Amino acid sequence: MIVVKVGGAVGVNYDLVLQDLVRYKDVVLVHGGSSELNEISKKLGKPPKMVTSVSGFVSRRTDRETLEIFNMVYCGKMNKMIVEKLQKLGVNAIGLSGIDGQLLKGRRKHIVIVEDGKKRVIRDDYTGKVEEVNVNLLNLLLKNGYLPVISPPALSYDKEAVNVDGDRASAVIAGALNADVLIILSNTSGLLREVKNEGSVIREITMDGYDDAMGFAHGMMKKKVMGAFEALENGVSQVVFGDARVEDPVTRALHGEGTVIH
Amino acid sequence: MIVVKVGGAVGVNYDLVLQDLVRYKDVVLVHGGSSELNEISKKLGKPPKMVTSVSGFVSRRTDRETLEIFNMVYCGKMNKMIVEKLQKLGVNAIGLSGIDGQLLKGRRKHIVIVEDGKKRVIRDDYTGKVEEVNVNLLNLLLKNGYLPVISPPALSYDKEAVNVDGDRASAVIAGALNADVLIILSNTSGLLREVKNEGSVIREITMDGYDDAMGFAHGMMKKKVMGAFEALENGVSQVVFGDARVEDPVTRALHGEGTVIH
Repeated sequence: MIVVKVGGAVGVNYDLVLQDLVRYKDVVLVHGGSSELNEISKKLGKPPKMVTSVSGFVSRRTDRETLEIFNMVYCGKMNKMIVEKLQKLGVNAIGLSGIDGQLLKGRRKHIVIVEDGKKRVIRDDYTGKVEEVNVNLLNLLLKNGYLPVISPPALSYDKEAVNVDGDRASAVIAGALNADVLIILSNTSGLLREVKNEGSVIREITMDGYDDAMGFAHGMMKKKVMGAFEALENGVSQVVFGDARVEDPVTRALHGEGTVIH
Repeated sequence: MIVVKVGGAVGVNYDLVLQDLVRYKDVVLVHGGSSELNEISKKLGKPPKMVTSVSGFVSRRTDRETLEIFNMVYCGKMNKMIVEKLQKLGVNAIGLSGIDGQLLKGRRKHIVIVEDGKKRVIRDDYTGKVEEVNVNLLNLLLKNGYLPVISPPALSYDKEAVNVDGDRASAVIAGALNADVLIILSNTSGLLREVKNEGSVIREITMDGYDDAMGFAHGMMKKKVMGAFEALENGVSQVVFGDARVEDPVTRALHGEGTVIH
């Protein structure tokens, strides 16, 4: 079983990813849509706003209006674009969000931010963290020949849709499915020792290298590193950060190109 | 088995529909999103454009850009809004478009319109007609306790997403599932003898009443009448046009309120 997460950042080439992906069996795909979301949000007069929590993590401020735009872009535009491309490639893909069939369940968070030196709790934010996966549903679909294409949001325990990080969601999914490998593809050649120096890819990280890895990780890479270690803790034997801008990105990652965490 | 189609026109009350719907078992829900689509299209600088075919049918001009906005609104905003509401009501809903798992397959149409008195074929239009339903997928989900919430688009035989009429899609779905009844809910109390006179509901139409019914149908009602008769031809015993603006709209329709076609 392979779980592939493909990000939504600028530069990610979905055609290259999907053309390679269809060569493999027993695959679950998780996808993002951040750059498309930023663009559509701006067009709809609701430009993206990022907030930094007290623990230093950057996330998208997701009020109810943002959540609806999020659903439009992730579940509507991106998910159906991917499903259509996979269908064209001869694979019977089926697109699902985390709220469909309670596929991804988790805790809604109350984000604590620091503003003008003071802590403030944001109460109308729809952000959360995936904790449970409906493995029965995924196995039902896989057993019947469908390739699941999964998108945030997840469903909170109070049955609200919540924006969740796709990298960390893919880690929980890979763990729940006892996947052999989790491949996280994005617009970089791997975890870099020096930011912006694509030649400085860290080739290998082991279980005890979390602090070092987090030290090298910047921006969105932090959550990928967290996801990678969560996947390992959940029993996935190997995680690879691969490049979604090149030919055969899945095959390359399976051959150890990029950053291998094990 | 009940198939319920609920439209996306102004006035439709999804809360009333869903609160009533969850009282029934063996239900498949099909939904629309036209008024929401019009609104979002305008905001995105791509206002809706309707075209009239040579045979007199009005449909949405769906170029590739419109199709992407269509997917955003129908599969992203509307579908996930409905799934979230059903989950809150305690029903394990699962949202699918017609391209997911090849749920709805059909023919892509080349629309012929009349412009300045001349016929013109529109070749870059992504509009189609549902002809096949993946009944296995629907039964798989129903058998496992999920309530399918279905949205256009459908998948063309060339594996392209195509905008299809939701009413007629629901008729094909109801036929394929051997449904006992197809309920088509919208912002009217039924098929009216006099347009805008809600007191003039036609209570009953029989199989031989197609031409009369089409005579009374205006605008979007034409496709509902076509869908109703297609459902009957496909073996559905009864179709009801019900009111989606009132309490208990599903129950009322099942009790024969509105227009019953049989």
